[in-house]
Amino acid sequence: MSKKFVYLFQEGQANMKDLLGGKGANLAEMTNIGLPVPPGFTITTEACNEYYAKGQVFPEGLWEQMDPALGDVEQATGKKFGDKNNPLLVSVRSGAKFSMPGMMDTILNLGLNDETVEGLAHSTQNERFAYDSYRRFIQMFGDVVMEVEHHEFENILENAKEKQGVNFDSELTPESLKNIVEEYKTLIQRRTGKPFPQDPLKQLEEAILAVFRSWNNDRAIIYRKINNIPDEIGTAVNVQSMVFGNMGNDSGTGVAFTRNPSTGEKALYGEYLMNAQGEDVVAGIRTPQPIKTLEEENKDIYDQFVDISNRLESHYRDMQDIEFTIEKGRLYILQTRNGKRTAPAAIRVAVELCREGVISKEEAISRIEPGQLDQLLHRRMDDEAELEVLAKGLPASPGAASGKIIFDADEAASLGNSGEKIILVRMETTPDDIHGIIAAQGILTSRGGMTSHAAVVARHMGKPCVCGCEALRIDYSNKTVTISGVTYRVGDLFSIDGATGRVIKGEVPMIDPELSPEFRELLSWADEIRSLGVLANADNPRDASKAREFGAQGIGLCRTEHMFMDPARIPIVQDMILAQSPIEREDALAKLLPMQEEDFYGILKAMTGLPVTIRLLDPPLHEFLPNSEDLAVEITKLKMQGGNEEEIREKEEFLRAVRSLSELNPMLGHRGCRLGITFPEIYAMQARAIFLAAARLVKEGYEVYPEVMIPLVIHVKELSDLRKITEDIAQEVIEEQGVAIPYKIGTMIEVPRAALTADEVASAADFFSFGTNDLTQTTLGFSRDDAEGKFLPIYQDKNILEHNPFAVLDRNGVGKLMKIAVELGRSTNPDLKLGICGEHGGEPSSIEFCHQINLNYVSCSPFRVPIARLAAAQAAINNKN
Amino acid sequence: MSKKFVYLFQEGQANMKDLLGGKGANLAEMTNIGLPVPPGFTITTEACNEYYAKGQVFPEGLWEQMDPALGDVEQATGKKFGDKNNPLLVSVRSGAKFSMPGMMDTILNLGLNDETVEGLAHSTQNERFAYDSYRRFIQMFGDVVMEVEHHEFENILENAKEKQGVNFDSELTPESLKNIVEEYKTLIQRRTGKPFPQDPLKQLEEAILAVFRSWNNDRAIIYRKINNIPDEIGTAVNVQSMVFGNMGNDSGTGVAFTRNPSTGEKALYGEYLMNAQGEDVVAGIRTPQPIKTLEEENKDIYDQFVDISNRLESHYRDMQDIEFTIEKGRLYILQTRNGKRTAPAAIRVAVELCREGVISKEEAISRIEPGQLDQLLHRRMDDEAELEVLAKGLPASPGAASGKIIFDADEAASLGNSGEKIILVRMETTPDDIHGIIAAQGILTSRGGMTSHAAVVARHMGKPCVCGCEALRIDYSNKTVTISGVTYRVGDLFSIDGATGRVIKGEVPMIDPELSPEFRELLSWADEIRSLGVLANADNPRDASKAREFGAQGIGLCRTEHMFMDPARIPIVQDMILAQSPIEREDALAKLLPMQEEDFYGILKAMTGLPVTIRLLDPPLHEFLPNSEDLAVEITKLKMQGGNEEEIREKEEFLRAVRSLSELNPMLGHRGCRLGITFPEIYAMQARAIFLAAARLVKEGYEVYPEVMIPLVIHVKELSDLRKITEDIAQEVIEEQGVAIPYKIGTMIEVPRAALTADEVASAADFFSFGTNDLTQTTLGFSRDDAEGKFLPIYQDKNILEHNPFAVLDRNGVGKLMKIAVELGRSTNPDLKLGICGEHGGEPSSIEFCHQINLNYVSCSPFRVPIARLAAAQAAINNKN
Repeated sequence: MSKKFVYLFQEGQANMKDLLGGKGANLAEMTNIGLPVPPGFTITTEACNEYYAKGQVFPEGLWEQMDPALGDVEQATGKKFGDKNNPLLVSVRSGAKFSMPGMMDTILNLGLNDETVEGLAHSTQNERFAYDSYRRFIQMFGDVVMEVEHHEFENILENAKEKQGVNFDSELTPESLKNIVEEYKTLIQRRTGKPFPQDPLKQLEEAILAVFRSWNNDRAIIYRKINNIPDEIGTAVNVQSMVFGNMGNDSGTGVAFTRNPSTGEKALYGEYLMNAQGEDVVAGIRTPQPIKTLEEENKDIYDQFVDISNRLESHYRDMQDIEFTIEKGRLYILQTRNGKRTAPAAIRVAVELCREGVISKEEAISRIEPGQLDQLLHRRMDDEAELEVLAKGLPASPGAASGKIIFDADEAASLGNSGEKIILVRMETTPDDIHGIIAAQGILTSRGGMTSHAAVVARHMGKPCVCGCEALRIDYSNKTVTISGVTYRVGDLFSIDGATGRVIKGEVPMIDPELSPEFRELLSWADEIRSLGVLANADNPRDASKAREFGAQGIGLCRTEHMFMDPARIPIVQDMILAQSPIEREDALAKLLPMQEEDFYGILKAMTGLPVTIRLLDPPLHEFLPNSEDLAVEITKLKMQGGNEEEIREKEEFLRAVRSLSELNPMLGHRGCRLGITFPEIYAMQARAIFLAAARLVKEGYEVYPEVMIPLVIHVKELSDLRKITEDIAQEVIEEQGVAIPYKIGTMIEVPRAALTADEVASAADFFSFGTNDLTQTTLGFSRDDAEGKFLPIYQDKNILEHNPFAVLDRNGVGKLMKIAVELGRSTNPDLKLGICGEHGGEPSSIEFCHQINLNYVSCSPFRVPIARLAAAQAAINNKN
Repeated sequence: MSKKFVYLFQEGQANMKDLLGGKGANLAEMTNIGLPVPPGFTITTEACNEYYAKGQVFPEGLWEQMDPALGDVEQATGKKFGDKNNPLLVSVRSGAKFSMPGMMDTILNLGLNDETVEGLAHSTQNERFAYDSYRRFIQMFGDVVMEVEHHEFENILENAKEKQGVNFDSELTPESLKNIVEEYKTLIQRRTGKPFPQDPLKQLEEAILAVFRSWNNDRAIIYRKINNIPDEIGTAVNVQSMVFGNMGNDSGTGVAFTRNPSTGEKALYGEYLMNAQGEDVVAGIRTPQPIKTLEEENKDIYDQFVDISNRLESHYRDMQDIEFTIEKGRLYILQTRNGKRTAPAAIRVAVELCREGVISKEEAISRIEPGQLDQLLHRRMDDEAELEVLAKGLPASPGAASGKIIFDADEAASLGNSGEKIILVRMETTPDDIHGIIAAQGILTSRGGMTSHAAVVARHMGKPCVCGCEALRIDYSNKTVTISGVTYRVGDLFSIDGATGRVIKGEVPMIDPELSPEFRELLSWADEIRSLGVLANADNPRDASKAREFGAQGIGLCRTEHMFMDPARIPIVQDMILAQSPIEREDALAKLLPMQEEDFYGILKAMTGLPVTIRLLDPPLHEFLPNSEDLAVEITKLKMQGGNEEEIREKEEFLRAVRSLSELNPMLGHRGCRLGITFPEIYAMQARAIFLAAARLVKEGYEVYPEVMIPLVIHVKELSDLRKITEDIAQEVIEEQGVAIPYKIGTMIEVPRAALTADEVASAADFFSFGTNDLTQTTLGFSRDDAEGKFLPIYQDKNILEHNPFAVLDRNGVGKLMKIAVELGRSTNPDLKLGICGEHGGEPSSIEFCHQINLNYVSCSPFRVPIARLAAAQAAINNKN
């Protein structure tokens, strides 16, 4: 006896996907919970495999099993396959275990032939519909089963419309359609040497074989390869009776959501059309009615549908998106699936389902795709607005902004400070532009990648930025920008969307971010569940407050370099850098000390009661100096114009200094704690500023927890030397000021050597913070700036790297080093606090990994704190053991 | 009963260093093998520790043990401590377990006082000597024991010389010396309130206490800290009878080596002086005699000495450096140690000792310091020549060269090709200068570090190079270079020494490198012993042949980028880089193909029968383009001079192209196999060239083993994709040409991610070659170019890093990654061949590590192949288990 190849829908279950495919299992599930699903059966994936195993022949025993199944369907529908009067029509669809949309073939209306088409015309009282269905069936069958080129059918169709003088298929008369049917049949005969089969059983056999065959068509093979779907699992075949919504005024078709997919409100939401097929809705000839109207039109059906939708929601325990058809007063459910929804709806639905007792808090949390929340946390363009998109750049910092375009930082600063809304437009920005960036609503550049100066600064300020928008031709001297031949002048209104990179003409209505009550509730549940702490990266009191508002439990990374880039400070910073002796340097540092103290005072105050991790100066010093190419050009000009000799000499001296500090690979150069080792006075000044600020606050009654973080350590001795300097200063200030200041000293782990020797490094550290941006750069040998604009996209296209490793943590490489560091670090210092402060700290899959390797916290941009809280809770849920 | 604090020399042994210190154990050893060592005893380190433990008092029981020991010495010498007629004089010296030269104190001639000095005058018949000895003793004792400032004694001495009207101490009359003695004693009384002690036993007690005390003087504490010597081990004190070589014509003193320390020849080598002290030899008043003369002068003593030196050599099993004194016809050995020797002598001595059966081959090999051999493998300056050193730069590439200074590569090339010897002098070099570099004998630059273009190219060509010589002021327009105010013109003769960085005026005689027969023999023994293969890094047939001559077993790294830098090729290479489409690129590549084929033909032919590992193109493409700053300045000039518009436009276009290829961190940028992934046609061309060349050679009867190496892999998929391309081309060529070509395909492991995922990578590799230069850069986050000139020296000064990690492999960081890669790689591919081709492959300690982690081979510069062979053998010997 052969295997059981055929399952009636009522014989299957949701968990039989291996055997019945996804669609088949789903149809079975719906049938079994008592939904009015059009009857049918599923031919198993094993039949498909048998087909291939035996050399592509119709599996032995399959026909014998199908025969009674077909009888069962006939009985359930009261129709008969091949019956002239009341013919049973079926759809034949593939359905593998994993969804492969559009990859394999589908045939509708199978069972039509020259005789049954008349029966259909009669029973629907719609000859046009019957012949159109027949025409469509022959075309699909001819294409899929008999392999006649699709366009040949289309030619015939086009000719017919031309002949009849109409534009749309739907305008064709029954006569035209009958002619088309004849021409189709002739075409098939001519191309294949075989007639179009009139016997419905023959049609069914060939259609099933065609579906089996389609498992190995080129598209399907490639799709499986890309999506890592095994070749040997095969496809099932679903044979289901057709129902028609156009069988009169007691028929109809529609789609509905059990809740509002836009807001999440609990109320049926959808539309329907009586005496129509789904395609009529799509064609837009008639306007569908809102689902509520059905109540008036046919209360019985409506009540049935409400009942079904309630059952579906409680069965599937989520908002459903339901397709239904009413055939002659009888309701059929064609499909149900979890409904797609906006982010606000997702949150509201999950929270309300939980309140209703349908799902647990854990499930509510698991239902939200954290990445989707990003849009809720930034000002964004109104989805309803009509936009004139001028160009697209890189989405460098999310959020949207509108304002006058200004090409100069000084001008932007003065206008911005007088209350104008500004979009600062530059080829690229430098530290000299920082006052313009602060004053602007958004930044737009024509050059530079996701980590260009503009992008980095904007992201940290939570300010929208589009960068590397190469379509811009900026002319600073005329204060214009030309895009696709059109020139815009200073003061023209632009909008930018930093989440998509769009540059838009004019002002666009915006929507402000807010945490809805449901969102807050959901996050409070997340906080109960997660074990990872969530801190924020913030460099100033404003960002710190925002982070606090979003629920951050402290600052995990306060960078100090932006504090140096303030235009009022840059000259002093340059004096410090170019100092010829430690004494000259001390002079400049003495001027910076009170400024830094104010910086730390502000941020420590904003975070009273919570830890603030302050990273000592990290970037290479030449970042604070101008570009050597510009300087060289300037000197050349001065010389050729016979400029002042003294000025030229000074500039040449300056150029020499800039050159001597310039580096071939600044990422791997003289930066991080290497600065602290070579110029201990810089770190000493910063440490003093931190502890002086802390002492003031303690006296004022605040609770401060400064944590000093030493960047770019590769050897324990760097850390222990710099720890000693910091501790000495802390002790000095504490004694001098007569206050107690609880503090910690730790390090970034951002270079492989630090991870590989973490047991040694941990002996001098109170905490480790993984700097996964740099750690990714060094572990992969990728300069982010150079990779993202150049070869990284190609790497993703060629499927060499699945994700951008700067967005999603590379678990196999960088992650392996992190795991080594965690184990080695805790082996010598069990109290070691471990966290992450790279951008990955706000990315859900990376957060899950941080949970898995037992970090204590993640730290991310203030605007991603809610996402991180949620993702941390999901990680805890998914990794329960 | 107290511990045994005092050991007569005859009671000790060589292995008692913990207790007797290094010097004490050595004196005991010499005494026990029957050498005539002046009798004495050692006070143990335990006595010193007891001294500190009891609060710095003379250890209880020590005096009681010293008393009989002193008696024993008196008996052995026939002298008596404090005896007016024949006084025993002793030296008191510190001697810890580890040598701490100059850190602690020594007192000579102890036992002299106002009475015994007369006895000494009488017995030596030399009043001047006796009082000079007394004067010295008081001065040392006063300084060391009684802590009177050294310069106060010197003042007295200076005044005395002035008074007597002489310049040298040795010219002082006995009367002057007697006066000095009196003045010294007065000084001590005045400064300390105590008299200079006349009692020899009191002298001895105080001297011993002073030695104990000196263990904790500041110098000694710092020295121990720096050298990681524990503070608690204490010092021993050696009390030894003095012998005098100036007691008449039957007395004398000398130093001799058992073999010639310059050549290694087996013959006594040294000199002596009768009736003299060691210091007389130093003073240079009398000329010492060669040791052979002693045979005529005193055959008996000479024979004794020859006998002793033979015994010493066979006891210590190495060439000895012996200090001896003859006192009244009696020979005393004061010290013996393994003699310092030149590299050629080291080799000859080791080989001959082995041939004589004194040491084994393993020992012979272990005796050679591989680093010392470097000088033997390059042309070098004659040590005898007088040199006028003008300046010093970085020793960028070893070897020496003389020639005319030329400031322009074209001029250098044309003169060089016409047979002139040239030193190319540039501020820095670029790929445009390559023809000048090839034609020059040596390269001298004023800018750039050990990895500047000049340095790298020169090292790989084995050409001497001094770079970063900042004293040079080069004026290209006037063709001059000014050093310390003196200006030299084009064509002047300079010499450079790339091993020391010296720049020398004029021509210097040179010595050519050679492998002496002994060296060859030693290396053949090394080859028997080592398990590591030794291959060479070579990019051209000339270097390959040199490597073969030095014993390389193949080419471990053949770079292909230098082949692209040939001036005839650069325009084609630039066309390839700037191509706007794959087709344009194919055109340029088609022109390069035959050139590359010739390159590979040459090198594969030179290495017939041995493997040649060819690395596909590695550096970022913009390395083949000019510098953007220069271009920008050029364009500015053209514009201001109202230059040709067309030309300006073209240059601007070019600048744009150069800028678009420029990278912020080229080391981590678009290079290595990233080029192969983005432009597969480049790698395909190179693979075709390799297999076409191989096919030709096979047809000509050569044996070729090409191994294609894919650089900078971070993910197995890069390697498997590029492997596929290479295999397809190999197959194509093999079929097309109808020959069999055995080949391998593998990868560099030079980025941490490759090491961390080596199990995956190994599945697509036949071999791994560790590129430890890049692996060090990424693992430590160090850009070599930026680190070596800037912070790395500070890191070494501050003792954060013991070695330059680019010179000596960082075992704890980079090494850990290598170990991970070896284990993971072999776990999935047990046949994986593993090697190293970074510069560490030629550095002995790194080679030892490669042996320890079970690599199959090391590959290094041709000139270091002999060093690597030796170091590999030493590694095998040291790591036998």
